[in-house]
Amino acid sequence: MNTAGTAKKAAVILCGSGFKDGSEIRESVATLWALSSLGIESQCFAPDADQADVINCLSGEPMNEKRNMLVESARIARGKVLPLHKLIAADFDMLLLPGGFGAAKNLCTFATEGAGGTVIPDLRRAIESFFNARKPIGAICIAPVLVAMSLPGKNLDLTLGPRGSGTHEVEKLGHRTTVRRPDECNVDIPNRIVTAPAYMHGDAKLREVFEGIRKAVEETVRLA
Amino acid sequence: MNTAGTAKKAAVILCGSGFKDGSEIRESVATLWALSSLGIESQCFAPDADQADVINCLSGEPMNEKRNMLVESARIARGKVLPLHKLIAADFDMLLLPGGFGAAKNLCTFATEGAGGTVIPDLRRAIESFFNARKPIGAICIAPVLVAMSLPGKNLDLTLGPRGSGTHEVEKLGHRTTVRRPDECNVDIPNRIVTAPAYMHGDAKLREVFEGIRKAVEETVRLA
Repeated sequence: MNTAGTAKKAAVILCGSGFKDGSEIRESVATLWALSSLGIESQCFAPDADQADVINCLSGEPMNEKRNMLVESARIARGKVLPLHKLIAADFDMLLLPGGFGAAKNLCTFATEGAGGTVIPDLRRAIESFFNARKPIGAICIAPVLVAMSLPGKNLDLTLGPRGSGTHEVEKLGHRTTVRRPDECNVDIPNRIVTAPAYMHGDAKLREVFEGIRKAVEETVRLA
Repeated sequence: MNTAGTAKKAAVILCGSGFKDGSEIRESVATLWALSSLGIESQCFAPDADQADVINCLSGEPMNEKRNMLVESARIARGKVLPLHKLIAADFDMLLLPGGFGAAKNLCTFATEGAGGTVIPDLRRAIESFFNARKPIGAICIAPVLVAMSLPGKNLDLTLGPRGSGTHEVEKLGHRTTVRRPDECNVDIPNRIVTAPAYMHGDAKLREVFEGIRKAVEETVRLA
């Protein structure tokens, strides 16, 4: 509870529904569950735009169709998702960014351009707004690259996966990286950035992914 | 651990990825998480066939496209899902059935035909096989109707949602119903059937849904 006695609120950014072309479903649900367990109200947001691609998550092959991020995110959000451009940082106490390949190709161009890529403007503005307002940001799996790209040169302490899983690109952007286990998170207290590797460790067990995300959400809430 | 000292195994049945046309994503993830937390190995299965329909989960309107249950379930299963016809009860210690509207219209015709409907043959055979082998079955949300329809007249004690949420149809099939809260489950010990209402209570909080499913999985494992 914040000083007004009302529940704190978290904005959660989704970008589709699936580990190969949108938000990682399990990480997204774990984030929403951890928030719910702590009594935090959450509101999901997603860009009202097509995904970069649609991948058959069984075969790994591209599918010749279009899917809209807002519409597909509604599968995870149970219909309660707003267009990303409506997100106003002043209305929330914290920002949560689940992972999934979509975080690296729908929300930014990291997947193809690495450190030289760009974050979609609505999300970059949101990340800058939360950071500048000293409101905490929690980022899971590959999503820390969104923070790294939106806040270059800020010397943030971030975790991704094992060394080499994009860590060099994040360091090129003027940040530090720390390796954590899938059941751990990493807390940059001065910058109020919490990160957890989750499925960046490809062999992580689901219970470990949940535990790492639970800790990350708990630390994010603590900083809010 | 069973007597052989190896981890027990659960078969989990999916039928797409989304609360309006497939498996309820959060209930499916909660089921897999609870199994993982208890050290149970899980294997997902889904029919290799098109969903009954594809629903825009933001607007609730039908979409003019086809989606395959096996392919879409892979979004939840992270690619590790097998065709339902390959499920052999002898290879598993328990069967788990998450909910979602797909359970009532992709896996059976309950949504349109109620107690007079039918379960797809591969699933009906699986439910009969687990039941006859006295292996426990855990069913979430609307999925208890799959058990009720596959085992008519067995006088099973099942929970769905509040009175009227399909409970009369289940009773017509020769079973009893018990109302439970979203954070509870219902255990029919003699028949080894565990059920949890989850999102059959439309206003359930995610933490309650997880708690009810955690309890249901725990009881299912205990009976295995």
